[in-house]
Amino acid sequence: MIEVRRRFFIMSELTNSRYNCQNGIVQPLLTDLYQITMAYAYWKSKKTDDYAVFDLFFRKNPFSGEFTVFAGLEECLKFIQKFRFSDSDIAYLRQILPSSIENEFYEYLKTLTADHIKFYAVKEGTVVFPRIPLIRVEGQLVVAQLLETTLLNLVNYASLMTTNAARYRLAAGHLKLYEFGLRRAQGPDGGLSASRYSYIGGFDGTSNVLAGKLFHIPVKGTHAHAYITSFNSIDELQLTMLRNSNTDTDENFVHPVLKWREKLISMFGVILSEVSNGELAAFISFAIAFPDGFMALVDTYDVKKSGLINFCAVALGLHDFGYKALGVRLDSGDLAYLSNVAREYFNNIGNKYNVPYFGKLVIMASNDINEETILSLNDQDHKIDSFGIGTHLVTCQKQPALGCVYKMVELNGEPRIKLSQDVGKVTIPGKKDVYRLYGAAHSLIDLLQKAEELPPVAGQKTLCRHPFQVFLLNL
Amino acid sequence: MIEVRRRFFIMSELTNSRYNCQNGIVQPLLTDLYQITMAYAYWKSKKTDDYAVFDLFFRKNPFSGEFTVFAGLEECLKFIQKFRFSDSDIAYLRQILPSSIENEFYEYLKTLTADHIKFYAVKEGTVVFPRIPLIRVEGQLVVAQLLETTLLNLVNYASLMTTNAARYRLAAGHLKLYEFGLRRAQGPDGGLSASRYSYIGGFDGTSNVLAGKLFHIPVKGTHAHAYITSFNSIDELQLTMLRNSNTDTDENFVHPVLKWREKLISMFGVILSEVSNGELAAFISFAIAFPDGFMALVDTYDVKKSGLINFCAVALGLHDFGYKALGVRLDSGDLAYLSNVAREYFNNIGNKYNVPYFGKLVIMASNDINEETILSLNDQDHKIDSFGIGTHLVTCQKQPALGCVYKMVELNGEPRIKLSQDVGKVTIPGKKDVYRLYGAAHSLIDLLQKAEELPPVAGQKTLCRHPFQVFLLNL
Repeated sequence: MIEVRRRFFIMSELTNSRYNCQNGIVQPLLTDLYQITMAYAYWKSKKTDDYAVFDLFFRKNPFSGEFTVFAGLEECLKFIQKFRFSDSDIAYLRQILPSSIENEFYEYLKTLTADHIKFYAVKEGTVVFPRIPLIRVEGQLVVAQLLETTLLNLVNYASLMTTNAARYRLAAGHLKLYEFGLRRAQGPDGGLSASRYSYIGGFDGTSNVLAGKLFHIPVKGTHAHAYITSFNSIDELQLTMLRNSNTDTDENFVHPVLKWREKLISMFGVILSEVSNGELAAFISFAIAFPDGFMALVDTYDVKKSGLINFCAVALGLHDFGYKALGVRLDSGDLAYLSNVAREYFNNIGNKYNVPYFGKLVIMASNDINEETILSLNDQDHKIDSFGIGTHLVTCQKQPALGCVYKMVELNGEPRIKLSQDVGKVTIPGKKDVYRLYGAAHSLIDLLQKAEELPPVAGQKTLCRHPFQVFLLNL
Repeated sequence: MIEVRRRFFIMSELTNSRYNCQNGIVQPLLTDLYQITMAYAYWKSKKTDDYAVFDLFFRKNPFSGEFTVFAGLEECLKFIQKFRFSDSDIAYLRQILPSSIENEFYEYLKTLTADHIKFYAVKEGTVVFPRIPLIRVEGQLVVAQLLETTLLNLVNYASLMTTNAARYRLAAGHLKLYEFGLRRAQGPDGGLSASRYSYIGGFDGTSNVLAGKLFHIPVKGTHAHAYITSFNSIDELQLTMLRNSNTDTDENFVHPVLKWREKLISMFGVILSEVSNGELAAFISFAIAFPDGFMALVDTYDVKKSGLINFCAVALGLHDFGYKALGVRLDSGDLAYLSNVAREYFNNIGNKYNVPYFGKLVIMASNDINEETILSLNDQDHKIDSFGIGTHLVTCQKQPALGCVYKMVELNGEPRIKLSQDVGKVTIPGKKDVYRLYGAAHSLIDLLQKAEELPPVAGQKTLCRHPFQVFLLNL
């Protein structure tokens, strides 16, 4: 027995108020000038109240993939609800448009809202496929046309980014994924959107604090190489005391750590002069600041000869004081190999000194990771628990744009088609509804119907046509 | 004789107030969490007043190219001038940071500003090269560190975009270039930044109205395919009258256009049934709305058999009425070939009916243009006057991120270095100034010196070392 689920929802079913804020630059002028010139030409031709239907859809899944995740809807809804030209917008348009434009048009523009637009959409986060309308906009021709560019802008990158994140999630399986791309993102909002939509796509958190504040996304972070290089020697440490949570007294934390380090140096046969004292001082100071959340970047000098030794010395010191360290981050080198080395250090120390959780310390990797790196690491038997992913995630390196388009499919009740010598660019005319048909185990097919047709019914035969194939589906 | 020009300018020399607005999301929390956790660890270690010097630079020119154009500075300056955590920022940080963090730290954060930071930078729009510091930040360690992520975010995409635009400009020579990428840009701000920085990089304008309003960039646009398909026939035209500017009376505009179309149909031997009446109606209505600015999209149906015929008929009608049409836009097909066809139509009609400017009507092309398309069109003897460029420009398809980094090079007067097994990642330590040395014809070399050294002097010998070569330059 097949189940039929409606894919299209009307605005009141789509809105929720989780995110109140909206980027202030999302406003009616965030559009292409031709939308305004067309609005004038429609107005002048007395076509403003023609009743139009537009479909927003894409033609090809991104990243040579088999699916897309629809996102950006929340921002579209806020945009539509607040759609109105301000006095300053009108003043600016008067400056840049030809002086022949009639004054009444500006009066008309000022009155426009999207209040009478009927807005249908697939729910945010839905897996979608090419040519299925993601959004259908119905109503006054001029208003529906004026929404085009902004809706496309809000959906295109959001859906691309969410899809990209979902692909990383599929590659990484159960491992933790964090978005670290703010510094390389395409501008401030590119950074915020990347954090938000990678979370929707399945990431566990972000380093972007503002994204955390605005969108209630978990925020993650420890320290950078600069923190390590800002210390030269143990003597520089001005704060050496840490509360011992077993005894609840403040005790010197440096001495026990130095003792642990001596033991580890001999245990792992490394050379004292190669173990950085600046790095150790940085780790100690960070552990004193965050005794319950100590996570260290271990590749500023040499991971095996310095970083891991210093980290483990501090982690064992924390253990003596009744705290548990979190783990390490690797930001360069052969990540599979180094993660195995780190895990071996942790296991050996955990066994030798009877600290059972040591073997489970987190190993995070974060150097130029992309989907292929993760897949290739999977083949190499790595010991990484989590990835911090920046540039390639947020810029969608593999394909930096999704090609959503917004096409008129009906006007005043008559279907419209955009012809093209490129068959792929021909639109499917008419007002359509979308249904997804489910079998027992999973979804089977997305079905497009004319809006006036009755919905398919589970248990009844439904004729499903493909542009190139016809087959009969037993519901 | 060689001229020496200082490349680094201090803040007061850099600020201008052309753009007052700033995106509201550029604020101190638009950063990575680890900047805040490091700030706490510095504070806890009593290192907050250490005096640090950071360099912002990149290691490799983008797009396999030979240069980069520095941009984003204006936004950096505004960010620094307004840098201050709000009460709501502090409240949020209290929520997400460990409860062990001392209350005094939050009090301390609240007092921070960048007022005592010394900020040096290369001027916006300067051509720059790898490893030259674009920005040098000096001052209180904690503040200088807290600026990192936001400065990188503001410089990275801005410089990448400006460089990309400059490359399109070099490829296109004197042709007009317009940025049309808003709908495919990486979010709302990605779109605004693309418009702004493509203009700095040498474009002539944008379709993005808000960018025009905020940044005083020329805005360009006509109509979309939807406008054309919204008309079915000539009978639909509700407005048929246009002011004849020769006689200053309102006259029927449809009849003369239809007469011209008959002549052109026979002149070019096309078939009446293949010339779209909907398209003609759309063109007429658009010309009536914009008689002084008529530019038409001619590829909705067939460029040769319909679009050009309808456009020329309307343009000749406008000529009779004392107006000059602007030209056509081609958005599909073989652009070199179609531009030659269009130019031939225009020349033949101009000659036959003695309308001299007809041969010079603008031909704009706008379908998936990138740098390679322009270079390839250059080889094909096209007749295009201007390009509208979207997706590939704004997403920087060839390389979607510039790798600017921000590295500590000095602390409390002592040079600092970030070592790496990857030699390319080793930093150049110490506080440096930058000079550009000019010969008679062009610039010769960028010279990095320790900040305390005297500037090079024109007419005196200066030893210039390359990491791998040494040579003597006669100034």
